[in-house]
Amino acid sequence: MQGLLKNWSISHLTQLFMDIVNRWVKPVDPACLSGAGRRHAMAPTQEGSRDTLLPDFPRGPLDVYRARASFNWKELALFLEGEDMLRFKKTIFSALESDPLFACPAGRHLPMEKYREVNFLRCRRLFEYDFLRMDDVLQNPLKVLALVSCLGMYDWSLCIKAFLHVFVFGLAIFNSGSERHLKYIPKIFSMEIFGCFALTEVSHGSNTKAIRTTAHYDPATEEFIIHSPDFEAAKFWVGNMGKTATHAVVFAQLCMPGGQCHGLHAFLVQIRDPKTLLPMPGVMVGDIGKKLGQNGLDNGFVMFHKVRIPRQDLLNRTGDVTPQGTYVTPFKDNRQRLGASLGSLSAGRVCITSMAVVNLKLAVCIALRFSATRRQFGPTDAEEVPVLEYQLQQWRLLPYLAAAYALDHFSKSLFLDLVVLQQGLQRNDRNARQAELGREIHALASAAKPLASWTAQRGIQECREACGGHGYLAVNRLGDLRNDNDPNCTYEGDNNVLLQQTSNYLLSLLARDGPGGTRFESPLKSVDFLEAYPAVLGQKFEAASLQDCLDSSVPLAAYVWLVCYLLRESHQKLSQERRSGRNDFEARNNAQVYCCRSLALAFLELTVIQRFHRHTHQPGVPPPLRATLRRLSALYGLWSLSQHTALLYRGGYFSGERAGKMVEDAILELCAQLKDDAVALVDVLAPPDFILDAPIGRADGELYKNLWAAVLQENQVLERVPWWQEFSTNKPVVGSLSSKL
Amino acid sequence: MQGLLKNWSISHLTQLFMDIVNRWVKPVDPACLSGAGRRHAMAPTQEGSRDTLLPDFPRGPLDVYRARASFNWKELALFLEGEDMLRFKKTIFSALESDPLFACPAGRHLPMEKYREVNFLRCRRLFEYDFLRMDDVLQNPLKVLALVSCLGMYDWSLCIKAFLHVFVFGLAIFNSGSERHLKYIPKIFSMEIFGCFALTEVSHGSNTKAIRTTAHYDPATEEFIIHSPDFEAAKFWVGNMGKTATHAVVFAQLCMPGGQCHGLHAFLVQIRDPKTLLPMPGVMVGDIGKKLGQNGLDNGFVMFHKVRIPRQDLLNRTGDVTPQGTYVTPFKDNRQRLGASLGSLSAGRVCITSMAVVNLKLAVCIALRFSATRRQFGPTDAEEVPVLEYQLQQWRLLPYLAAAYALDHFSKSLFLDLVVLQQGLQRNDRNARQAELGREIHALASAAKPLASWTAQRGIQECREACGGHGYLAVNRLGDLRNDNDPNCTYEGDNNVLLQQTSNYLLSLLARDGPGGTRFESPLKSVDFLEAYPAVLGQKFEAASLQDCLDSSVPLAAYVWLVCYLLRESHQKLSQERRSGRNDFEARNNAQVYCCRSLALAFLELTVIQRFHRHTHQPGVPPPLRATLRRLSALYGLWSLSQHTALLYRGGYFSGERAGKMVEDAILELCAQLKDDAVALVDVLAPPDFILDAPIGRADGELYKNLWAAVLQENQVLERVPWWQEFSTNKPVVGSLSSKL
Repeated sequence: MQGLLKNWSISHLTQLFMDIVNRWVKPVDPACLSGAGRRHAMAPTQEGSRDTLLPDFPRGPLDVYRARASFNWKELALFLEGEDMLRFKKTIFSALESDPLFACPAGRHLPMEKYREVNFLRCRRLFEYDFLRMDDVLQNPLKVLALVSCLGMYDWSLCIKAFLHVFVFGLAIFNSGSERHLKYIPKIFSMEIFGCFALTEVSHGSNTKAIRTTAHYDPATEEFIIHSPDFEAAKFWVGNMGKTATHAVVFAQLCMPGGQCHGLHAFLVQIRDPKTLLPMPGVMVGDIGKKLGQNGLDNGFVMFHKVRIPRQDLLNRTGDVTPQGTYVTPFKDNRQRLGASLGSLSAGRVCITSMAVVNLKLAVCIALRFSATRRQFGPTDAEEVPVLEYQLQQWRLLPYLAAAYALDHFSKSLFLDLVVLQQGLQRNDRNARQAELGREIHALASAAKPLASWTAQRGIQECREACGGHGYLAVNRLGDLRNDNDPNCTYEGDNNVLLQQTSNYLLSLLARDGPGGTRFESPLKSVDFLEAYPAVLGQKFEAASLQDCLDSSVPLAAYVWLVCYLLRESHQKLSQERRSGRNDFEARNNAQVYCCRSLALAFLELTVIQRFHRHTHQPGVPPPLRATLRRLSALYGLWSLSQHTALLYRGGYFSGERAGKMVEDAILELCAQLKDDAVALVDVLAPPDFILDAPIGRADGELYKNLWAAVLQENQVLERVPWWQEFSTNKPVVGSLSSKL
Repeated sequence: MQGLLKNWSISHLTQLFMDIVNRWVKPVDPACLSGAGRRHAMAPTQEGSRDTLLPDFPRGPLDVYRARASFNWKELALFLEGEDMLRFKKTIFSALESDPLFACPAGRHLPMEKYREVNFLRCRRLFEYDFLRMDDVLQNPLKVLALVSCLGMYDWSLCIKAFLHVFVFGLAIFNSGSERHLKYIPKIFSMEIFGCFALTEVSHGSNTKAIRTTAHYDPATEEFIIHSPDFEAAKFWVGNMGKTATHAVVFAQLCMPGGQCHGLHAFLVQIRDPKTLLPMPGVMVGDIGKKLGQNGLDNGFVMFHKVRIPRQDLLNRTGDVTPQGTYVTPFKDNRQRLGASLGSLSAGRVCITSMAVVNLKLAVCIALRFSATRRQFGPTDAEEVPVLEYQLQQWRLLPYLAAAYALDHFSKSLFLDLVVLQQGLQRNDRNARQAELGREIHALASAAKPLASWTAQRGIQECREACGGHGYLAVNRLGDLRNDNDPNCTYEGDNNVLLQQTSNYLLSLLARDGPGGTRFESPLKSVDFLEAYPAVLGQKFEAASLQDCLDSSVPLAAYVWLVCYLLRESHQKLSQERRSGRNDFEARNNAQVYCCRSLALAFLELTVIQRFHRHTHQPGVPPPLRATLRRLSALYGLWSLSQHTALLYRGGYFSGERAGKMVEDAILELCAQLKDDAVALVDVLAPPDFILDAPIGRADGELYKNLWAAVLQENQVLERVPWWQEFSTNKPVVGSLSSKL
């Protein structure tokens, strides 16, 4: 063990792990969210070093748009990310590009079995690169997200495989276990064991409380007996479990010899022998088969037939069993305990929010570079114009570009909020503010994942269609993005189910009866606007001209009204349902559609717009970047708002034809103002061509040359099929089988 | 040749072909749209024969819902399809199920090369079955659509491969050629040749006029020289061309020796030797590679290097060249001629509309059977309820079920309209009514394809998400449906581009200055409602109670107002753009978003609702079926309408909070009324389990048993990976490569 780890001691590694993930010892520097803050805003990066970090793009058909951009893309990249972060990302991208193990074609194009193998080897290689150093993370926690993003941009199967092993499995042990489980942490890094997180069963996903795997304690041997009562209780969908995991954090109902059950607890269960990868006795473990995407990842199932594990392998942070068989827990009730043991799911939701944003970024990069170089039709037969010049194409794509920027900012800021929360948890803060912060972040994350994953899913589909037939060619990656993003809508909580967490939080604020002035106040201030409730409902849309509408303050004001309106509607609906005799379960179910569900989404849209508005209007934004960033903010705000126009009219915030038309005109005007900046805005988001991996989206804009190169590189493009004689020799006799019908 | 065809003479075959596709000699019987019409409404099918045709489903967990249904599913199936059609479909499904060549797993699960081979063999086998007989078609033209649907339900790659060869390639020769080309028709049926339709080039799809392949006439040898000037002019995306086609209908610019060009014409070009499947000299033909779906179909590209073909292989219906090199055409101008030669695309759009509806049907079958058997949460911990009981789940899925019914009816009725049009063309009708009918069908088809393909695409995605993780498992087919439906949004005309055809048609009606009473009248009466324009714009929403809203007459009235409103908006926007100095090209481009595009979609929604409303309210509907069918009609109407609520308020049709809420309440009420009928409604649409091919959607409702059977049947589910030693032996040394970074 020590030999394998060379100069790393166990305590060193453990420390590393704790620091990386949990214990950000320094207070978070808000300047993380603006690269400028860290690189001395007053001392601009030298031209030379900037060009090394952000080299010019190859000349080509995109030059026209690049020349028209109203700002310098390098300046924006530096403002948003900072030199240090850009260097960090470049390091990762360059390493992948130089290493033959990561060579094209990406695993996505391989048969599933081969893809799985390559993905495993690449995952192992990540440990050798060890991209993320402790001091990096301490300096800027966002590097965790950046690593996830860079790996995900390359291939989600790889990123998620590593992430599940180190972060999800590792964190579950670290957060749910105690001192006695720390020994497993270095084994994770050395890959002596390989881990997975087994919560979901084949018949239970959303309703985790109803999980049916059991863990009976046997005081005679001081063991737990892990058992799956039937096939429906098999753990299912568990990432890494299909082929590679040796250990699983298994959630099971803890039952005592007397028959008493204490609810769901986490156990560390060995499922395969690390020496042979063969299943342990009593364990039936296998692969659930092909999925719509992420096929480099081996999702699996497991059934336990009375598998015995030592008492110590109960992850005992929230509840423990004494050798004699007494159950002990610091929590008052089971619900509270379960909440604590599943609490880390919130972190997962924040990460998935970022993952979805990455997918959206990649898709808009591909579609906008395509749109700037694809020409079709024109004012005369002789001249065709780039499809980006069409208002319709702008309207289809530019709001998603704006969404990518706005949601990217939001996901980073939410991640930093989470870091603060984790710091408090590690300090064992038990004060009211910490609890309130936990609830607020839970509410935000539970709507952030739905909003981001749906926006990405719709955006990718729009990008696919906006690229026409070429978007349907697998090599251009939009299909893989759609397939890989899709589960973001489902895992770590189905989007629609999650939204209820957010609306419950908001509705619970209404129910509080605090002293007048402090009722609507939260640590992150995301609900402070409710102070104006219900008075704000008397407000009206006030923009007098199109020009007035071109700033995100207009949608912001409308959203404050909208969320208050939906809060009242939801509250009234719930009350009405209860008055008509429905129990709480029924009342809540009947208040989702058009009320609570819309409330949660609108609230999160407001929060995203609020944060991006502030970010783009802060004094630190370099003047040459202001106009474009504010346009993005306004476009995202108005475009999101335009989905709710019906409610704005219905509730009286809008009246007359003019308000609705003004918002539409403003959206189109912003699209027109942004279209010449679109390529430069995409240049800021796009990873290197090797990572983007889409011929129609390459930085040189040589659309058709790149497409042909890719098509002709494929296997046996020009060869005749080996079964050609089936055509030339065996001709059908028409109707010869019709007598069989 | 004669030997191969046995008792079929060439003229016999040609006649068959002509009759099948073009020359429906009998007037179309409107009763085709209601099976009851054909099976003597007064003499109900005997119970016994009905049960043979529509056997009961196996007992199981779906029984609960089946017992609760308000109608008999067999009665509805018979009413909608008729006994004869049901028998026809059953024959096809049974043949596929009994033939080992079509055995599970469907080609979708095979590696691409193998899939291509199997798909070709299956395509050939279809000729041997010869499912579609002339007398069948004469009796009921809808059998053409039924055949497409049945094959598509099994596998679109198969259906489209056969369809492109027989219908698209064959019809192009038949419609664009003349007497001298009829010799090719029997060769299509005997598969002596295999065909494809080569219009799109790599750099031109939507703008077909700008196609750059040339055909120079050489009078010296009486040949055309087919040539691709460069890689951007290569034909691309051509279905069947990748590996199997021997002949292509190639669209090229016809150029005369004097240098004069006469625009796009179709040529029959041999691209491979049928004896060897090797390319002909001067032809570079290959496969464009993997697509997002439909990978059993070989889409290809071709470049011509001065390929000489005989003068006779110009398909000369719309323009011909004499041996001496004189160009002759019956058309006055090139635009008119091109319109005629590309006219058959309209038929393609009608078919794609039906194809999309098939996909939507399959998806709702899978998702609703899943929802009726999947239980999650409940009022107490002890009792979990089927997710179909949740209002949110009903609201997510039931409108798509209603859409499947409404669009299915519409697509069939539009197909029958097309048949009437084709009859007229074959009779060489040149009267005004025939021309007007052509324009109307073109306008309808150009919006029907977008509406149906988008509804299906969104519906499939919703179904995927509504099935949670299990919807993400490839074996449950929702991914394949999404991937296979996706190109319906793009081919035969990009959806957004096509919608302009429809809005142009509607706007052109406004421009006509006929005598007052006859201005808005069309053969199919789809624009007759415009008679009320603009007076109708003064109307208001009138429903007084929720009860009033539960009939499709309410959304119908609202849609009449809405389409008129959008027509005025679009007209005003265009005028305004022109007044501000924009040319026609710019003005039209700037009037798409929020105006013309919405107009086209709303118009088609109105037409669909109108036709389904009439169908469900006709006296011939058996009384036990009325309530359910009318609920479906109302639900589809209101749900579609609810996307336009903002406009209804903005334009003053709605005012006050009540109108908007009433529509929402009506949608939820209809969902509640339909949820107990959902399983029975799906039983009417669902093909046999073998065809549906989704474990979670099987008719017995044994969700988990079926899922497990499918998972465990896959390859090497429980085996360890062959590269297991990579895990057990080679451990990473953390950071060992970090010096390379």
